[in-house]
Amino acid sequence: MTENIDKIFFSAGLSIRERACFETGIKLGALYHILCGIPIQSDENIIHSIEKGIEAAISCQPFVKSIKIDLDREKILRNKSTEFDYDEITGKIIRAELIVKYESVEIVAKIDWIEDLEYPLMYIEKVIEKP
Amino acid sequence: MTENIDKIFFSAGLSIRERACFETGIKLGALYHILCGIPIQSDENIIHSIEKGIEAAISCQPFVKSIKIDLDREKILRNKSTEFDYDEITGKIIRAELIVKYESVEIVAKIDWIEDLEYPLMYIEKVIEKP
Amino acid sequence: MTENIDKIFFSAGLSIRERACFETGIKLGALYHILCGIPIQSDENIIHSIEKGIEAAISCQPFVKSIKIDLDREKILRNKSTEFDYDEITGKIIRAELIVKYESVEIVAKIDWIEDLEYPLMYIEKVIEKP
Amino acid sequence: MTENIDKIFFSAGLSIRERACFETGIKLGALYHILCGIPIQSDENIIHSIEKGIEAAISCQPFVKSIKIDLDREKILRNKSTEFDYDEITGKIIRAELIVKYESVEIVAKIDWIEDLEYPLMYIEKVIEKP
Repeated sequence: MTENIDKIFFSAGLSIRERACFETGIKLGALYHILCGIPIQSDENIIHSIEKGIEAAISCQPFVKSIKIDLDREKILRNKSTEFDYDEITGKIIRAELIVKYESVEIVAKIDWIEDLEYPLMYIEKVIEKP
Repeated sequence: MTENIDKIFFSAGLSIRERACFETGIKLGALYHILCGIPIQSDENIIHSIEKGIEAAISCQPFVKSIKIDLDREKILRNKSTEFDYDEITGKIIRAELIVKYESVEIVAKIDWIEDLEYPLMYIEKVIEKP
Repeated sequence: MTENIDKIFFSAGLSIRERACFETGIKLGALYHILCGIPIQSDENIIHSIEKGIEAAISCQPFVKSIKIDLDREKILRNKSTEFDYDEITGKIIRAELIVKYESVEIVAKIDWIEDLEYPLMYIEKVIEKP
Repeated sequence: MTENIDKIFFSAGLSIRERACFETGIKLGALYHILCGIPIQSDENIIHSIEKGIEAAISCQPFVKSIKIDLDREKILRNKSTEFDYDEITGKIIRAELIVKYESVEIVAKIDWIEDLEYPLMYIEKVIEKP
């Protein structure tokens, strides 16, 4: 079975939940580094297009059930007084919710800027096991 | 004037045309490296969303008059027989037309995969000087 | 404790092993998208410098115990007959071994191009629990 | 001549200086987007390795005579009190000097964070025509 070739590479002791957590991390790490450095400005059409474009890309990856990107509009540079007044996507404005489904396990994970840590934290909010 | 601060950094001997060519190169170099590695698959909605998202981003940059991305659908992996059958954007599928306007000069530039060079060539097709 | 703030965001039911798997995925996803699109050519000094540079970057991330990047020299374009004969890093040449340590768990993970899948597979080779 | 195929794509009216300016822009745009988002911390060995790695990569591109990256150490996060105290490369710390040689023209160009513009300005400092 082609679809099982990948399993021969994984540690035999790895549980389905652990594999699902691993796949979730891969997608968030990828999402973050694809978004970083993309030019943006405080214009709803532009922000929305970028969100939809990168959501479409991430949705192609294995085991992605859903992905919703919600860039923090409050923190995107506002005035366009000169040609140079535009902004770039960094961890401070990236917020996303990802659902990964691997076999019977669904993981709900997020990335959000945590002010107390001054850090774009990626975390697993929920693990759901379907019978 | 804030909008002229940038000029004090440039060589005094640089013509408007030369500056326009420089700005054009910056945008194509950025466009290329933003696109590279983005996941994609042979699905018109997905391809279209990615194109629109990155066009929106590039249009924020200084002096960009228009940007049209046209990924080469013929070269994007087609079948979705397993979770791993998706593709990634590389220079082989990137095609775009950019128009930069700097003062009185407009530059029409392109990026396209040139089979004879096996290379994603970025080139200036036209320089238009408005009176 | 600042170092525990992050835990309040994670699902209470997540095991240490699962968290370690998640963190491992994040680093591999990041590594892959940082590498993709970087120019390279078949010159040992250049390849080595790029490997060391990106290893240094990844080693800054939380819970990374070690990272070794080993780009596949056999697949990097060889001849420099024209200015355009250079290559770019893609999944076909990326090979790396990462060790993540999260509390009492160490994960050995790899990324490698799997010819049968035509895919740059990221996988967990070993999970080691220290007493 | 393979090395002249590229010229047939360019506007016939483009001068050697203009082409050189265009090529310079491409490299700076690429450099910037390759660097953005790379993890870093205030450790001289790590900073130096990243600089050398990306210099090696950029030096592969056509017409690059030299490239020197000098990340602004003053602005990189210093304390490593928790796992999350590391930084990421953004436009605020990127400084580089690039020399492009296209036929008889050499361009000296820079990227630097300009505080008055709050912008990572890419500019051409000097154009040198060799007889």
